[in-house]
Amino acid sequence: MGIANVLFGRPLASDEDTQQRVGPAAVIPIFGLDALGSAAYGPEAALTVLLPLGAAASGYALPLNLGVVILLAIVYLSYRQTIAAYPTGGGSYTVARLNLGARVGLLAGAALMMDYLLNVAVGISTGVGALVSAVPSLQPHTLLLCLGLLLILTIINLRGVREAGAIFMLPTYVFVACLFGILTTGVIRTIFSGGHPVPVVTPPAVRSTVGAASVWLIVRAFASGCAAMTGVEAVSNGVQAFSEPVVRTAQRTLTVIIIILMVLLAGIGYLVHAYHIAATEPGRSGYESLLSQLTGAVAGKGFFYYVTIGSILAVLALSANTSFADFPRLCRAIAQNGYLPYGFAVRGRRLVYSYGVYVLTGLSALLLFLFGGVTDRLIPLFAIGAFLSFTLSQAGMVAHWRKQKQPAQGKMLLNAVGATATGLTALVVIVAKFTEGAWITLAIIPLLLLVMNGVRHHYHGVARETSSLAPLEVEALTPPLVVVQIEDWTRVTKKALRFAMTLSDKVQALHVDSGETSDTLAAQWREWVQEPACQAGLLAPELVIVKSPYRVVVGPILKYLRELEAKHPERSIAVVVSELVERRWYHYFLHNQRAQVLTALLTLDGDERIAVVNVPWYLKT
Amino acid sequence: MGIANVLFGRPLASDEDTQQRVGPAAVIPIFGLDALGSAAYGPEAALTVLLPLGAAASGYALPLNLGVVILLAIVYLSYRQTIAAYPTGGGSYTVARLNLGARVGLLAGAALMMDYLLNVAVGISTGVGALVSAVPSLQPHTLLLCLGLLLILTIINLRGVREAGAIFMLPTYVFVACLFGILTTGVIRTIFSGGHPVPVVTPPAVRSTVGAASVWLIVRAFASGCAAMTGVEAVSNGVQAFSEPVVRTAQRTLTVIIIILMVLLAGIGYLVHAYHIAATEPGRSGYESLLSQLTGAVAGKGFFYYVTIGSILAVLALSANTSFADFPRLCRAIAQNGYLPYGFAVRGRRLVYSYGVYVLTGLSALLLFLFGGVTDRLIPLFAIGAFLSFTLSQAGMVAHWRKQKQPAQGKMLLNAVGATATGLTALVVIVAKFTEGAWITLAIIPLLLLVMNGVRHHYHGVARETSSLAPLEVEALTPPLVVVQIEDWTRVTKKALRFAMTLSDKVQALHVDSGETSDTLAAQWREWVQEPACQAGLLAPELVIVKSPYRVVVGPILKYLRELEAKHPERSIAVVVSELVERRWYHYFLHNQRAQVLTALLTLDGDERIAVVNVPWYLKT
Repeated sequence: MGIANVLFGRPLASDEDTQQRVGPAAVIPIFGLDALGSAAYGPEAALTVLLPLGAAASGYALPLNLGVVILLAIVYLSYRQTIAAYPTGGGSYTVARLNLGARVGLLAGAALMMDYLLNVAVGISTGVGALVSAVPSLQPHTLLLCLGLLLILTIINLRGVREAGAIFMLPTYVFVACLFGILTTGVIRTIFSGGHPVPVVTPPAVRSTVGAASVWLIVRAFASGCAAMTGVEAVSNGVQAFSEPVVRTAQRTLTVIIIILMVLLAGIGYLVHAYHIAATEPGRSGYESLLSQLTGAVAGKGFFYYVTIGSILAVLALSANTSFADFPRLCRAIAQNGYLPYGFAVRGRRLVYSYGVYVLTGLSALLLFLFGGVTDRLIPLFAIGAFLSFTLSQAGMVAHWRKQKQPAQGKMLLNAVGATATGLTALVVIVAKFTEGAWITLAIIPLLLLVMNGVRHHYHGVARETSSLAPLEVEALTPPLVVVQIEDWTRVTKKALRFAMTLSDKVQALHVDSGETSDTLAAQWREWVQEPACQAGLLAPELVIVKSPYRVVVGPILKYLRELEAKHPERSIAVVVSELVERRWYHYFLHNQRAQVLTALLTLDGDERIAVVNVPWYLKT
Repeated sequence: MGIANVLFGRPLASDEDTQQRVGPAAVIPIFGLDALGSAAYGPEAALTVLLPLGAAASGYALPLNLGVVILLAIVYLSYRQTIAAYPTGGGSYTVARLNLGARVGLLAGAALMMDYLLNVAVGISTGVGALVSAVPSLQPHTLLLCLGLLLILTIINLRGVREAGAIFMLPTYVFVACLFGILTTGVIRTIFSGGHPVPVVTPPAVRSTVGAASVWLIVRAFASGCAAMTGVEAVSNGVQAFSEPVVRTAQRTLTVIIIILMVLLAGIGYLVHAYHIAATEPGRSGYESLLSQLTGAVAGKGFFYYVTIGSILAVLALSANTSFADFPRLCRAIAQNGYLPYGFAVRGRRLVYSYGVYVLTGLSALLLFLFGGVTDRLIPLFAIGAFLSFTLSQAGMVAHWRKQKQPAQGKMLLNAVGATATGLTALVVIVAKFTEGAWITLAIIPLLLLVMNGVRHHYHGVARETSSLAPLEVEALTPPLVVVQIEDWTRVTKKALRFAMTLSDKVQALHVDSGETSDTLAAQWREWVQEPACQAGLLAPELVIVKSPYRVVVGPILKYLRELEAKHPERSIAVVVSELVERRWYHYFLHNQRAQVLTALLTLDGDERIAVVNVPWYLKT
């Protein structure tokens, strides 16, 4: 427990729950990192699509970003209503399930699970990727760095949601402060220079206009830019983690996150145009990220530049944390409805749904391992999950308002607009990104649904079979037939035999003779068991010897028990197995493991009427 | 069982033992491959030491080989006597143990174990090494080829000693026939050419005499050449595997093996001198093995050459098989005296001591893996084990003859000469090869002795603690206190409760309340357990609820049981654990493993007085 306490902190009692809740300042790093981090790659993703336009591309930055900002505003207002309506946690899964039925709910849940999982892998590998391009000597260790970061995130999150918030506060607020500083400086310079500021460090030259901007190109750029919106649903999902008053705290947190994100997007769009910055080809030499160019142009490449870039890297890498905060809660909600193993609903030592954390870590590690720590190709996949769940959540809210006794027309309209906008965006993203990998998401979601329905079916079957609303049947409580497996005459045997005789007066001692043990046992039996038992007026245990020509022991025992069952169709059988408990691991090699093998096989291949009784013998030496 | 039957053959009954024994023709490939294979590397090893002498070296080949042949003759006569004196198997371990005491016996056993283990690794890697130098494209797969060959040898040997002999007969006799053919041809040509035969393919040119032959150089060459004698003890060790009459068959087998080996060694020595063949530097370009040069010189490099080289490779690779035949028998003998785990003395499905085969395979695989399949550096290590065990075995025989009522002076003298000769040789080998790796053998043998004494000590302690020569104590057979662990009110719970009530009338149901389950259980208990029990005139099981603020379940159960034990210092406690048995592996994820965890912890951390009763529930679905 020593190491566990250092790594994960002391166990928390169930009633310490409310003390673990977090206020708005600490909650933004937990539930907002994903959303804020998106600002670092959303605008760049849009402009990368516009690369064929050359220098003309930067003109589209502001309108595209403003489009995203408007969509964001709609989604914000919708989710604000959702939080108020579902103060116990209104993630897309819950809202869709309660208003549109279990199937739609599961669809939203599956989409969101995909989104969270991909977010971990992509967040970590983007962060590490940026670090590696800054320090190229780390390149060969990319995968190791990714897995190490994943491990750290896992441990921090297993310590509980409160500590995660405290740890991530510094990089988050440095990131926000730096970007605000750059945007303010840049905007002021632009205005004072009459719209034509002089960059401190000139951005890389771009080719002059090459192709014409087709509508399809603009639509695809917008679809890519929508990656900036992932993570927005996190707050509504995690309402239960907020301090009282829950709804107010959650709404304020969402407001702060969305306003910061809007300002960042609008500001970046404006300055990219003003400073004539265009995306550079990723993966080619001379590549420089959009925010790096922008920071250089506004503030030069001094100390401030490195602080800013450092905070961007940190936020990208830590944006995975939002998934750690939300994925376990989502799985818990689904598990409570019986569609995922019950383990997801059990709180671990720090009141965290640890099972969900383990699964998320395991699957992310697998993804990182499969892609060698470079997950660029996964990026197109993960906006789909987010937008699918946005849409289903809004649609659920529309149904929610319709069911109210006093229909709230305004609120319903708002959610309907939100559902339409995000639904259309989801469609655009799917079509635009289909061949780039979106089809994988669309293929995995049905699989997830199948698994979840299978789990539910299994639990349902078990419940039907085992549930009981009837009293205990107290008739026909006959003591079991007791069979003791013995090898030779030792104190271990005698202890097991004595224990067996206290359970029932019908006791058999079963000895398997594989021709390599002596026949003296039968003689000893008469003298050392039957005579004393008779003198004490007890029914003496019967010695049964089974021959085993092939020297196997467990098989003949199972066969004998089957025959015994057939002879006594009404009685239960208790098999007493004496076990020499090894005190040290290397003793394992010195004694046969017959007790364990027999117990395991009796349980696996056994029968309703056979119980296994383990009588341990502890070696003093 | 289907696959096992195909791979390993049907199980053999214990009384089929004598049918599994093997006659002299089949036994040579089993117990003789190691000895015969030595002819392929012994003479070469000696001549390699003489490389500094240049062309003059070939003159020493015949005297050196004759020295080995004389030593061989002494050892042969000694072992012939050993076989007659110990018809139930007189390996060095047995002979030394019975005549010189347990400690010396173990020393011989440990030395022989090292020898056998190294022989597997070296044999396989030498064979594969030769194959790889013939087909260089296989080079990158050296380790894989070694491990594959090891696997095949393991499977063949697990099928039983009889089948191993049948499979290895062809390569062994092809090897002997080819070498005899070459020696005969070569000797006839040498005689007819007046001692100066003309080689068909001229051996590589050697430098003319460079250094002078010091005594130390010759001694070292002899020590290396003694590698040709390893494997000679194998027959005496495996007498039990021979068909009746055991002693005669074993002696004849030994005679045949030794005569073949002597002829090979003498012939090779004679022809190497006649054809002026010298060793080439191993591992350098232009390297060609001695036998390859000799075959080329006598028969040219045609079809016959390739058959000969092929059979040499096969015999080298398969010489590992002698270890597979003997190592398990040796370990069995040591285990029967309690110095190795009993498992080594248990015969598996094909009457083979399978445990020994597994251990040999495992350790050899480890050696091959550690050395990447190239074990040249191990070769100096393994003659030591052989000669150490030769010496101890002969010394044991001397003591054996002295103990006889009618001392057999002649036989004793013969064994004394043998012991002295092999003992001196062992010393020479150790001194000559000490820095080349012989020290490793000398360091590992004491370790092995420590382990074997530790095993014996443990078994002795266990026996002292558990053995009993007293009747069963039949007084104070009080039924146990029964504690049933229950989670909620289901048919599974009811079954466990009913079973508990048949064992004792003092039953407690223990429920751990971690604050996440309802309190309705207590109410149900009154209505559904206490009332029916009272009406039936039974003592109702008592419901005990233990609060668990930290949501752990197993800890509070263990704590409660400890307290219960303290309250009832005289009674034993049976803990009934109901278990939902998963029918499919993936169900493992759907249910908690509390039953298994509880059972394991109760056994590990438990107490003499606590027994665990597993009542399984089998899902129909």
